[in-house]
Amino acid sequence: MSEGGLCFASAFVQSMDFSEVMQLIEATGEESSHVVAYAQQKDDCLRGEYEVVAGDVDAHIPWATEALGCLLEAVNLWIGNARSHTSYHMDHYENLYAIITGEKHFLLLPPTEVHRLYVRNYPATHYISSSKDNGGEVKLELELEEPEKMVPWCCVDPFPASDEIIAEQSSSFPLYFNGPKPFQCTVRASEILYLPSMWFHHVTQSPDDNGRTIAVNYWYDMQFYMKYAYYSFLQSVNLNPLSSVASTQGEDKHDTKQNCSSSNPD
Amino acid sequence: MSEGGLCFASAFVQSMDFSEVMQLIEATGEESSHVVAYAQQKDDCLRGEYEVVAGDVDAHIPWATEALGCLLEAVNLWIGNARSHTSYHMDHYENLYAIITGEKHFLLLPPTEVHRLYVRNYPATHYISSSKDNGGEVKLELELEEPEKMVPWCCVDPFPASDEIIAEQSSSFPLYFNGPKPFQCTVRASEILYLPSMWFHHVTQSPDDNGRTIAVNYWYDMQFYMKYAYYSFLQSVNLNPLSSVASTQGEDKHDTKQNCSSSNPD
Repeated sequence: MSEGGLCFASAFVQSMDFSEVMQLIEATGEESSHVVAYAQQKDDCLRGEYEVVAGDVDAHIPWATEALGCLLEAVNLWIGNARSHTSYHMDHYENLYAIITGEKHFLLLPPTEVHRLYVRNYPATHYISSSKDNGGEVKLELELEEPEKMVPWCCVDPFPASDEIIAEQSSSFPLYFNGPKPFQCTVRASEILYLPSMWFHHVTQSPDDNGRTIAVNYWYDMQFYMKYAYYSFLQSVNLNPLSSVASTQGEDKHDTKQNCSSSNPD
Repeated sequence: MSEGGLCFASAFVQSMDFSEVMQLIEATGEESSHVVAYAQQKDDCLRGEYEVVAGDVDAHIPWATEALGCLLEAVNLWIGNARSHTSYHMDHYENLYAIITGEKHFLLLPPTEVHRLYVRNYPATHYISSSKDNGGEVKLELELEEPEKMVPWCCVDPFPASDEIIAEQSSSFPLYFNGPKPFQCTVRASEILYLPSMWFHHVTQSPDDNGRTIAVNYWYDMQFYMKYAYYSFLQSVNLNPLSSVASTQGEDKHDTKQNCSSSNPD
């Protein structure tokens, strides 16, 4: 079931002091760093774990409450650097994405374009700290979830790293690479992006001078209305027998596709 | 191609003095009348042919302009009586339906329910005045359009006239009669209904004490967006081989399905 030995890896979660994580994020922003540090949980964390800084931003966005007809459901804090990126996925929330410092770069495609993102099933995995290397640093390894679980996720990497990968991706995913370009936008400090529910988004980020990208996003429950009904129906009829099209409810993970080192469940 | 000898009949259009048409509408409101008089054109007529009375209503609805993000495209006047009804169809416009006097009764179904309305192709026809009867009254007959043209239209009559027809309709159109009921609403004088683009609507009306139902509707261009893309795609794949599902862009005609007396194009 997995594609080329790839898997869906949940992030390794570690509790640490706020000052410590900020130092780690600032110190590991280079491409050469093998650590990708991200202070982030999608569980209303700004009003939970990070409550102490919640007063620094607006608790509500009145015009959004009015336009969407409901109060927000979660406010999440995101502190990272250039190493974090989120592959294409979508969420069942209306999303207002506010940038505090640094920049976020979005690629956006409406739900109608799902067939161009080649959703496939990947085995779910998580990291375990297996040993400490000579320097005393934690070494992480991937382990399959038990019981085995498949996660539908988009295959397409919009920024292939080499000419060879570009050629390979274009021939594997022609509907994406030969079709209309996604909407592209950069959201800067003090700006808010309205990201409509169920829109596919791919996110990369640029840090500020201190090596940090900080954002807060406000999630509002979506109306499970026509857009949802049509989308679900099309998934259920599976018009293209070559692709296993499935719902991709977002689990905003960075580096979601990793070579699965613990086992190859093909 | 036609269903049971039925056809799609465009209304017979006749120019007459305003006072004359008002008398005709008031005098022909009974079920027994064989004339169905309706002062109505869907061509921005309130600002055209009926310009002289356009000042009696608001030229614009500011909140609608703001909400829909565009100025209106047409304002239509509708003056009729209980004899006029409009069978299920949809329009590619955002519609604000304001009642001046009398009442309109809407049945509403979202575009996702199109399969429950059993859209079929009917031969397009129009009325011709063939002769005058003994009383000097114009006699109308139906004539097929030349060249022949098929009009996709919804089969379902939500208010069958007899038990026999109810049984027949229920067995022919089970998805409609055995499925969830459509939204039902009555719009009264001084009220406005927002009828979203592409929603199927069936309309009947009750007159005021003078035997008149008068309404003005404001049409705004719709966004040919996700709702349209999904709808069109589903039409194109024709998932149900038993029904010829086709687009039903509205041509709000009253008494749209008539036994075709001029010929039977089966």
